[in-house]
Amino acid sequence: MKQQIRLLGIDDSPFTFTEKYATVIGVVMRGGEYIECVLKNQVEIDGDDATYICKDMIENTRHRKQLKALLLDGIALGGFNVVDIEEIFCSTHLPVITVTRDKPDFDKMEQALKKNFIDWEKRLTLIKNGVIHKVETSHNPIYVKCAGIDIEGAKEIIKISTIRGVVPEPIRVAHLIASGITRGESYGKA
Amino acid sequence: MKQQIRLLGIDDSPFTFTEKYATVIGVVMRGGEYIECVLKNQVEIDGDDATYICKDMIENTRHRKQLKALLLDGIALGGFNVVDIEEIFCSTHLPVITVTRDKPDFDKMEQALKKNFIDWEKRLTLIKNGVIHKVETSHNPIYVKCAGIDIEGAKEIIKISTIRGVVPEPIRVAHLIASGITRGESYGKA
Repeated sequence: MKQQIRLLGIDDSPFTFTEKYATVIGVVMRGGEYIECVLKNQVEIDGDDATYICKDMIENTRHRKQLKALLLDGIALGGFNVVDIEEIFCSTHLPVITVTRDKPDFDKMEQALKKNFIDWEKRLTLIKNGVIHKVETSHNPIYVKCAGIDIEGAKEIIKISTIRGVVPEPIRVAHLIASGITRGESYGKA
Repeated sequence: MKQQIRLLGIDDSPFTFTEKYATVIGVVMRGGEYIECVLKNQVEIDGDDATYICKDMIENTRHRKQLKALLLDGIALGGFNVVDIEEIFCSTHLPVITVTRDKPDFDKMEQALKKNFIDWEKRLTLIKNGVIHKVETSHNPIYVKCAGIDIEGAKEIIKISTIRGVVPEPIRVAHLIASGITRGESYGKA
């Protein structure tokens, strides 16, 4: 696989529950080293438009044709605004890879969803959909889900785009921008 | 000089003259390859707070102690909100380097300033202050001003932090972010 592969990383901004929308930042990178483009949009906090917004970012960037995969920090943006990664792949034909540092705790999520959402079963089904792969790294393991690409292909893309630590650069940089523009200075890890 | 030198690049967002403020983005990078931090602030369009905002970004980032230079896209932010680079160096002891692709046209600036500002002479003096060095590159030449560092040191920092083209990455990335968060997708060159 080429080292200069074009990847889109998406992450959301930190928010408080007094707000209605969370900012969503997309970053198009060549491999893990060169930023091509920065995109901005927003999702409703705990809404259901995250899948649509991801598809919109993919379809409307002028880098669309060069993109080889979408990298997401977990399976939701703006709280429990769950991303349907199978739907994104089916609709755009762009492979999707989600990466998290922590193993998803489905019991905890189910409790939170039941308490706050009438359509909790629908959201939980989306969250649980697909296989979570534990991927060992030279640091801590990461947890990876993919749509439209097998885990070996996903691991290769993650390896190409990770410079330091365990988080691929398109996700890490999207996180830094989303956090920095919201708080004034970026903090924390994707 | 170390390749991993920490640099702060600052650029402003595009704006229209119906707006009062322009967003200012700061990016802390190691050399030209690794983004450490993203900062956000704002300046008044055609105001006189750009010098203060640059000093504030320098002094208040948690990366302050590691910073080796400030890189600026030209000598002003938010229109004719001119940055006093000597004042920034005297006050913070951080060397400042400004980079532009085009040779400053002082006559044109003087006309624009005279037409729009009572304090045009003060702004023009600040703009004209110091020596502009024409620096040859493998592409087009760039025009460089420095405070607190000689041109040889500035050229070395520019060389370390430029990956493609002629614009150092901390400025190029600050431009992409400022442009992307304002327009939805980043456009143009710093």
